[in-house]
Amino acid sequence: MKKDLIFEEIKKKRSFLCVGLDVDLKKIPNHLLNESDPIFSFCKSIIDYTAEFSIAFKINIAFFESHGSKGWKSLEKVINYISNEYPDIFTIADAKRGDIGNSSYQYAKGFFETLSFDSITVSPYMGEDSIEPFLNFKDKFAILLALTSNKGANDFQFFYSNQNPLFKEVIDISKKWKNSERLMYVVGATKTSFLKEIRKIIPDSFILIPGIGAQGGDLIEVSKNGLNNKCGIIVNSSRKIIYSDSGKKFAESARLEAKKIQIVMEKQLKIKGII
Amino acid sequence: MKKDLIFEEIKKKRSFLCVGLDVDLKKIPNHLLNESDPIFSFCKSIIDYTAEFSIAFKINIAFFESHGSKGWKSLEKVINYISNEYPDIFTIADAKRGDIGNSSYQYAKGFFETLSFDSITVSPYMGEDSIEPFLNFKDKFAILLALTSNKGANDFQFFYSNQNPLFKEVIDISKKWKNSERLMYVVGATKTSFLKEIRKIIPDSFILIPGIGAQGGDLIEVSKNGLNNKCGIIVNSSRKIIYSDSGKKFAESARLEAKKIQIVMEKQLKIKGII
Repeated sequence: MKKDLIFEEIKKKRSFLCVGLDVDLKKIPNHLLNESDPIFSFCKSIIDYTAEFSIAFKINIAFFESHGSKGWKSLEKVINYISNEYPDIFTIADAKRGDIGNSSYQYAKGFFETLSFDSITVSPYMGEDSIEPFLNFKDKFAILLALTSNKGANDFQFFYSNQNPLFKEVIDISKKWKNSERLMYVVGATKTSFLKEIRKIIPDSFILIPGIGAQGGDLIEVSKNGLNNKCGIIVNSSRKIIYSDSGKKFAESARLEAKKIQIVMEKQLKIKGII
Repeated sequence: MKKDLIFEEIKKKRSFLCVGLDVDLKKIPNHLLNESDPIFSFCKSIIDYTAEFSIAFKINIAFFESHGSKGWKSLEKVINYISNEYPDIFTIADAKRGDIGNSSYQYAKGFFETLSFDSITVSPYMGEDSIEPFLNFKDKFAILLALTSNKGANDFQFFYSNQNPLFKEVIDISKKWKNSERLMYVVGATKTSFLKEIRKIIPDSFILIPGIGAQGGDLIEVSKNGLNNKCGIIVNSSRKIIYSDSGKKFAESARLEAKKIQIVMEKQLKIKGII
């Protein structure tokens, strides 16, 4: 997908919401467990009911992979469904991959070609040659972990060298990589105080912001500190939307949660003069 | 698998060789492409012919995942085959996973329960709570990336704070984590000058050392700097063994390559007085 299309979708839907599909069989409505593929059935309903307010879907690969090849079958059905039914919605494989070059190339091929994702989250630890293979695919994006929303972010991402924490070094260095225009960044919603600084280092890049809702991040703070003049942020909510109701009307309930968030986002886009 | 069993296997086979299964359809012998599952057929032959000299098999998940659910089916067959036929051989899912807690738990469940691997490689970037879920499984191991063998290792792993590079910080900090006795570490064979220092910080931990052979690491140097009194190193070779011949006798050829390495290892184990 071309980057401009993401912005078009943001303006059209007046939203920068990404719905995260973290499908835990223990949390989905009981009645779905009788279906032949409960994971796909759940995702399909959530997708259909939230697509009106979402510009991206982030699929958490861990929750599929935990079921082995069966989970991967469901994953294929989900990504194919989105690609066919909602081709203008940006798809993110939340996979946090990263390996030596020839292995990273295999991951890139898997997620971008075999599965037709638009983007994948990647971990920076192994450096440039571990990310480069992802950046060689036209109209595909690698979303690099910079500052994550979890407690463990403090362990190494704030490892300082001359007042410069590792997460800033990751952003600074990665900007110089070949095809870096295909890089986006993960910055957790729980880290708004740093988001403003990060936005200065990468004024034009898209930033994927997980952690609003269940993880405690604040959407308005995130918007104030992260929005640029082409929006530039994609804010993810998973559990708060998809598990808002555990009964037969789970999808309608998810729709309402997504709509609530979209309304706040529309206001922020207007304040910023984007729409 | 209990850690002592790995050492028993090392003494029995007089080897600390791990054969890496990086199965690229473009590189396996042509005649296998007519089989119903060429990836599994190739792995099965390599496993059968090298098991005599190997104490571990490292399965590179990227090469399976690039084929989607079909690749995952082959992966399941390969890990089941090893678990059933060679239960004393240590299995490593070379997957380099790591995510927020509930996602890492799903990965752990996938690789340790659904797929019955003994261990998985993990990336430290997201810190303790991203690794902890892997360490909660009894007799399973998380193998933490410390210093990798690729060029990009220089980008962030040598990010210094007060003369302390990030890779050492990763080792130092991770030693204090709960269940850290279930941690092993990845140190590339191309980094022998640092292996000695690392061995001092973690005298008793197993270190997985990829990068001999195709990546240029030296087995004798690695042994001199890495061996402890319970061996403590697992040295991986992938391409040099599994692609040593592309004809009908590929498995016999792989066996000879594995044997060559085992002979060198046996000598090193004797010099160190381990056998």
